[in-house]
Amino acid sequence: MWDMSKEQEHALRIAQCAQLAMLLEVSATPKPGNVDRTHDFEDTSFEHFLASAVGALPALVRASSSSFGVGALIRDAVAESMRWHRGGNTHFGTFLLFVPLCMAAGRHAELVFTPRLGSYLRSSASHIVRTTTVDDSLDFLEAFHMARVKVKDVDTLDINQEQTALEIQNRGITLFDLMQMSARYDLVAREWVCGFEESFASAKMITELRARHTLNDAVLVTFLHNLAKRPDTFIAAKQGDEVAMEVSQRACNIVRHLEARGLHDSLAMIEQFDNELVSAHINPGSTADIVGAGLLIALLEGMVV
Amino acid sequence: MWDMSKEQEHALRIAQCAQLAMLLEVSATPKPGNVDRTHDFEDTSFEHFLASAVGALPALVRASSSSFGVGALIRDAVAESMRWHRGGNTHFGTFLLFVPLCMAAGRHAELVFTPRLGSYLRSSASHIVRTTTVDDSLDFLEAFHMARVKVKDVDTLDINQEQTALEIQNRGITLFDLMQMSARYDLVAREWVCGFEESFASAKMITELRARHTLNDAVLVTFLHNLAKRPDTFIAAKQGDEVAMEVSQRACNIVRHLEARGLHDSLAMIEQFDNELVSAHINPGSTADIVGAGLLIALLEGMVV
Repeated sequence: MWDMSKEQEHALRIAQCAQLAMLLEVSATPKPGNVDRTHDFEDTSFEHFLASAVGALPALVRASSSSFGVGALIRDAVAESMRWHRGGNTHFGTFLLFVPLCMAAGRHAELVFTPRLGSYLRSSASHIVRTTTVDDSLDFLEAFHMARVKVKDVDTLDINQEQTALEIQNRGITLFDLMQMSARYDLVAREWVCGFEESFASAKMITELRARHTLNDAVLVTFLHNLAKRPDTFIAAKQGDEVAMEVSQRACNIVRHLEARGLHDSLAMIEQFDNELVSAHINPGSTADIVGAGLLIALLEGMVV
Repeated sequence: MWDMSKEQEHALRIAQCAQLAMLLEVSATPKPGNVDRTHDFEDTSFEHFLASAVGALPALVRASSSSFGVGALIRDAVAESMRWHRGGNTHFGTFLLFVPLCMAAGRHAELVFTPRLGSYLRSSASHIVRTTTVDDSLDFLEAFHMARVKVKDVDTLDINQEQTALEIQNRGITLFDLMQMSARYDLVAREWVCGFEESFASAKMITELRARHTLNDAVLVTFLHNLAKRPDTFIAAKQGDEVAMEVSQRACNIVRHLEARGLHDSLAMIEQFDNELVSAHINPGSTADIVGAGLLIALLEGMVV
């Protein structure tokens, strides 16, 4: 029999927010270019994302209750997620954001579900990523290879090479250093360096839009705003900067239409955009990761579905 | 810091199977008459079901790790689920099946994720429901009022009345007795009495269909078979026996078409049926609960998404 302690209950609650954030993010539709509840990719389906969100729970619980290493927790989240489905990489970038956010929430467990959490959460998460170690880098590298994420070469470090581990050790590169090197190429890494700026902005936007929209639509509109604001680096890594910029320009036009005519009158335009991206395998995955982090923050601050 | 014990890890894993079963069940589409990923009800949306599946976790973890009372665990699952969303009753019938199944899985934790679990799971779950007490009935009654489920009067006991509690105590009615009284009117109660017969049959069907279908389609076909086999008692309680029988006759025709022509050629027919049921507010909710239990059993036996 397991008599749950207060601390364990709190950790569970934070990890549940993380699960729900992943589920709401992947469900939001029509979310241009990503797996959502209405379309799968060839090898990765909506169900794979559900299983991943459920499967990563133990690592997210440990993150929410402890000061285990960030890198090890990201690696464990990836490993646990992949044990529950055969869809390959689903939430790699998400875990990179969620692990420090869950750890930070765990340090202010008594404020979870109150809007007061926000500023504490942000400063703790920033502190957690800035104090990562070389070991965190090595664990992260393991996670990276496990998930087989496709990215651009990072600075002078070729992240796809086995020798990277040695270089990390020789040069004493912490996980924060690694993210600083990648920030130019990677929106998720940029969040680490800039104090989760876009994640918190997304949380604010989702919460505000919630007053006059369904949650699905609040997430959808926030996603489009993010995509319009910055070229998606997951697209840039796969299809190049030009394609990424073109996609953001299209998103920008949709956001303008949206602001002038409302969501209802823009839906056909968004669906068309979605279909084009999906059939061209153009996948704004980093933008989705950041919107997911926004959902996590909003839920931790007390947003109810 | 929380160093998870082996026992706690096992409990978490069983509860994760329960979460995933709920998510896969509600996602399966086009599932005639129920909330699924493509349509909401007026007051209850797909997102409410996601939040409920996530929210009930603590009660399902406790169920998987202990011998707490069945009734109290059902009540806790309902209460925790409802704390995470504003969609009203989502998983009441589901929890009635999932709590004893999770408790039973907890007693054979070393067999979880192996096909050998099945027979042990079934006999333990049957034993657990048969040894429920009067206290379980009283806790269940609380859950029932909390969820505001609409059902037919049960035997001479009017389950909607406050005085029921007194009658339960005076007549010494256990929760198993209560389910025996309701078995004629309620497919979920019938599962308690008949050793989870349809739940295990559904698990078998889902697992077998999985060999040549997507998981979504395996769940969908299993749902249609169940609906064809027995009139849904949630429909009967709301719209009467005749409507329930008519719906099952329609499902029967679809299953015949399906067996002759395959799923692909039957999809338009299923979608048409779905649209008709949804617009007439005819909701085969008990059938969905049983298919959900089938998914839980299949996942506990090692099915991977």
